[in-house]
Amino acid sequence: MYSKLQQECLEANLQLPKLGLVLYTFGNVSCADRELGVFAIKPSGVSYEELKAEDIVIVNFDGEVVYGNLRPSSDTQSHAVLYRHFPDINGIVHTHSFYATSWAQAKRDIPIYGTTHADHLPLYIPCTEFMSDDRINGDYEVETGLQIIDHFKKNNLNPNEVEMVLVGGHGPFTWGKNATEALYNARVLEELAGMAIFTEQINPEITELKKSIINKHYQRKHGKDAYYGQK
Amino acid sequence: MYSKLQQECLEANLQLPKLGLVLYTFGNVSCADRELGVFAIKPSGVSYEELKAEDIVIVNFDGEVVYGNLRPSSDTQSHAVLYRHFPDINGIVHTHSFYATSWAQAKRDIPIYGTTHADHLPLYIPCTEFMSDDRINGDYEVETGLQIIDHFKKNNLNPNEVEMVLVGGHGPFTWGKNATEALYNARVLEELAGMAIFTEQINPEITELKKSIINKHYQRKHGKDAYYGQK
Amino acid sequence: MYSKLQQECLEANLQLPKLGLVLYTFGNVSCADRELGVFAIKPSGVSYEELKAEDIVIVNFDGEVVYGNLRPSSDTQSHAVLYRHFPDINGIVHTHSFYATSWAQAKRDIPIYGTTHADHLPLYIPCTEFMSDDRINGDYEVETGLQIIDHFKKNNLNPNEVEMVLVGGHGPFTWGKNATEALYNARVLEELAGMAIFTEQINPEITELKKSIINKHYQRKHGKDAYYGQK
Amino acid sequence: MYSKLQQECLEANLQLPKLGLVLYTFGNVSCADRELGVFAIKPSGVSYEELKAEDIVIVNFDGEVVYGNLRPSSDTQSHAVLYRHFPDINGIVHTHSFYATSWAQAKRDIPIYGTTHADHLPLYIPCTEFMSDDRINGDYEVETGLQIIDHFKKNNLNPNEVEMVLVGGHGPFTWGKNATEALYNARVLEELAGMAIFTEQINPEITELKKSIINKHYQRKHGKDAYYGQK
Repeated sequence: MYSKLQQECLEANLQLPKLGLVLYTFGNVSCADRELGVFAIKPSGVSYEELKAEDIVIVNFDGEVVYGNLRPSSDTQSHAVLYRHFPDINGIVHTHSFYATSWAQAKRDIPIYGTTHADHLPLYIPCTEFMSDDRINGDYEVETGLQIIDHFKKNNLNPNEVEMVLVGGHGPFTWGKNATEALYNARVLEELAGMAIFTEQINPEITELKKSIINKHYQRKHGKDAYYGQK
Repeated sequence: MYSKLQQECLEANLQLPKLGLVLYTFGNVSCADRELGVFAIKPSGVSYEELKAEDIVIVNFDGEVVYGNLRPSSDTQSHAVLYRHFPDINGIVHTHSFYATSWAQAKRDIPIYGTTHADHLPLYIPCTEFMSDDRINGDYEVETGLQIIDHFKKNNLNPNEVEMVLVGGHGPFTWGKNATEALYNARVLEELAGMAIFTEQINPEITELKKSIINKHYQRKHGKDAYYGQK
Repeated sequence: MYSKLQQECLEANLQLPKLGLVLYTFGNVSCADRELGVFAIKPSGVSYEELKAEDIVIVNFDGEVVYGNLRPSSDTQSHAVLYRHFPDINGIVHTHSFYATSWAQAKRDIPIYGTTHADHLPLYIPCTEFMSDDRINGDYEVETGLQIIDHFKKNNLNPNEVEMVLVGGHGPFTWGKNATEALYNARVLEELAGMAIFTEQINPEITELKKSIINKHYQRKHGKDAYYGQK
Repeated sequence: MYSKLQQECLEANLQLPKLGLVLYTFGNVSCADRELGVFAIKPSGVSYEELKAEDIVIVNFDGEVVYGNLRPSSDTQSHAVLYRHFPDINGIVHTHSFYATSWAQAKRDIPIYGTTHADHLPLYIPCTEFMSDDRINGDYEVETGLQIIDHFKKNNLNPNEVEMVLVGGHGPFTWGKNATEALYNARVLEELAGMAIFTEQINPEITELKKSIINKHYQRKHGKDAYYGQK
């Protein structure tokens, strides 16, 4: 029943080291099946070399394990929260990738400096505040998810438009219509994060890209008259 | 009729990921055949792993598709403009390579700091202004090409001497007598861009290389008495 | 008698170049067997390509060779000192890895900026002072070990909690319950060192991660109610 | 007669791309045979993939080709000058490696910040001034060599102790008792150059390593009582 989802989740997780986004087990991918009401996620602390499809854990959107023998990723509850609040997403990636994590640790939004960025989202990449002590001492992983949800609400961000976030002091989460898109966003984020660092170092006075260019690039890939790609 | 040009274009495009210049589909190479009055270019949004020779699109210098079933790169019109205005070039490369794009985002010319640079061109690497709103809201890709042409005219730059440019807020375009040379210039530009960043960080007071060394190195490779290479 | 320990030590040493932590012979791993009262260590100046299990030297905790034909690593006495003073460790790694060595050369502790760091240790990564002239002119490698021991005592650091150190002007040492954990710590240290550099560059005003997040992350992996990994 | 020397020179040159020290043909290695009174050097502008032993050019110490059909590296005269003035060296490497070239472009000596550096040389890595116009307009490659010789004389540097130099605005030359040592020095220099950049960024107030540590490390590898390696 869940073997196709497990296989998809396995393959998505194995992409993480190939894309250079994780060291050891510092990351995870989940894939949701909205009809079955579940998502598949990497088991906690299992190395990518040893990971097999049958190890993938099946969890419902309340974060309860419904199938599998291993303990799911320690970040499972954060994924569940995101799936509950962002109804259009079916894949989530969490990593500690080098440059994106450096921005998260620096507690700064990543400004939109170029068309590479604007091709993917029309705004800065948001970074949340540190979580409050109440949140940290509460149900930590649920609260990590809620920290993201609240940040999006407070800043009027649309998760179908901005498919990535930095949790302050922690690292990036990305998502998408499926795990492949969430992975793609994780890799793109890492590239944008790195180029933004050097952009500021080359020109400390630089300001964000002008709005008209941002809109042009975002719309040509994502607007209703998009003309990038094949159809 | 076009299969040789398609094959040449395929091979040139497959060099982009091998040279570390592109992520996903963030780049393209075209090859012109001046006698046939066309150029071959990568189709839009097709991954390098899947790309086949028959996918390569043939376009005339007005930017009209003359052969092929797929939609050409969204940057096709920019290539067409460059071929129309720079009569000696037969290959163009556009990438979002890491360091070169960081300079483009920072909106700065890359100063000429060393002989590695002077071996390839005798001047700074130019970076255009952001495009005007009129241009952005006009025929965007045509205007991107014209932005480059105008920048070269206004600054008295010779495209046979300076075979590379940064479009401000966007990224690099390079060209050459054929696609192989355009690719070579794209890779060299990325190296020059990276070393220029660290040169400024090591010595914020550094100024450009002195003229006499620049001329010596440029002439020994490109002058009429050049003595680099085999004849 | 020692062949199992030699084999373990060989495999651990061969991990160093695979993990990108050493250039040429700039590093070494040792593995202790507390029951046999010895540790195995790489011979000095032998390249990783040529290294064989029978080349591995067996040394007692006083630093005397008890088995093997080659001269042990020049850092052997430093390892012996650490084994004598830190009774719970059975693996030690010394490298000159790029970012960690840069911090050691800069003579700065690496601040704890994010959860990637807090997942592994609840404090900054300590950097010792330069050694005194007396120490340098004494039994240098023994004194290097003692410099670490003294720094841990003076700063009330627990070597079972902080399993890594930078020797000022030199480079990193890491350790663990076995060689595999010591290697893991060496690779993690390199990643933390690199991200800390860029964190400070992105935001020069950044301060350390708040205590409550540090404790949460450290405890969920290392506390008595740890819930990371399987069981 | 020269085939052994050609083979040695071929293998040394093929190490350059493997060590990550060259892009395209931006580097060369030569190997001298003092008894035969010649050195072997890479032909100019030939790619490493195509290079064969019989392509290697044999040149005497006056810089005259004595054997081979191809034109030798454009840097041949610089190598010849170094061989004439530094009688103990039998291998020379010239590259435009990333970090070392950045220091050369920044026109700064690389300070000695750590034991990785002191393990190889007991001083900063010297960077020459820009060459004078007279020199540039004279016999340029001969003068490049003389620029190095003069810098060593003026600064009382011993080429058997300091086996590397940066030519200001250009890039690094390294040498050694044979080509293998010269290559080793080129790779070590690149690592030292990179770490020195980040050392200064981590701590802009940092000063050089103290003399007593420098001497200890240099002597334990190179002094008369050296105890690094096997005998």
